[in-house]
Amino acid sequence: MTSRVEVFVQLKEGMLDPQGKTLEHALESLGYAGVDGVRVGKWITFEVQGEGREAIERQVDEMCGRLLANTVIERYTFTMREAGA
Amino acid sequence: MTSRVEVFVQLKEGMLDPQGKTLEHALESLGYAGVDGVRVGKWITFEVQGEGREAIERQVDEMCGRLLANTVIERYTFTMREAGA
Repeated sequence: MTSRVEVFVQLKEGMLDPQGKTLEHALESLGYAGVDGVRVGKWITFEVQGEGREAIERQVDEMCGRLLANTVIERYTFTMREAGA
Repeated sequence: MTSRVEVFVQLKEGMLDPQGKTLEHALESLGYAGVDGVRVGKWITFEVQGEGREAIERQVDEMCGRLLANTVIERYTFTMREAGA
């Protein structure tokens, strides 16, 4: 079973996001008013092979916690769907 | 009307993604087999105020093309929903 995984990583609420602030100021200076709360996170996609949806989910969750996100300062979510579906 | 926007930016197909390759190798060395095609993109979220869904959509699309994505090497998509909805 091949699953298509999308992981979303973002700084936790309350953490300063300088990259987001930079984009916000840049948008403003380009003339886009009314934009607020810009936050820049990571969108990581991959395919993973394995047996059983729950087992794969556990594995992806572990991968996020160990490598893909820094859980001290970041939070993550992910979605999974069968490849080809 | 306040809309909550999520922008997804990723290198175009065929573009080398060294950050993705690095993660893929790191996952392998952590013992996660069966992971393939890791790609690292950006997930940018913000709120935007404006009148009329179509006008806001046009504005967000323009913001993506001018600043949030480098359309020579990156592709982007975005979703919008009314804040609070």
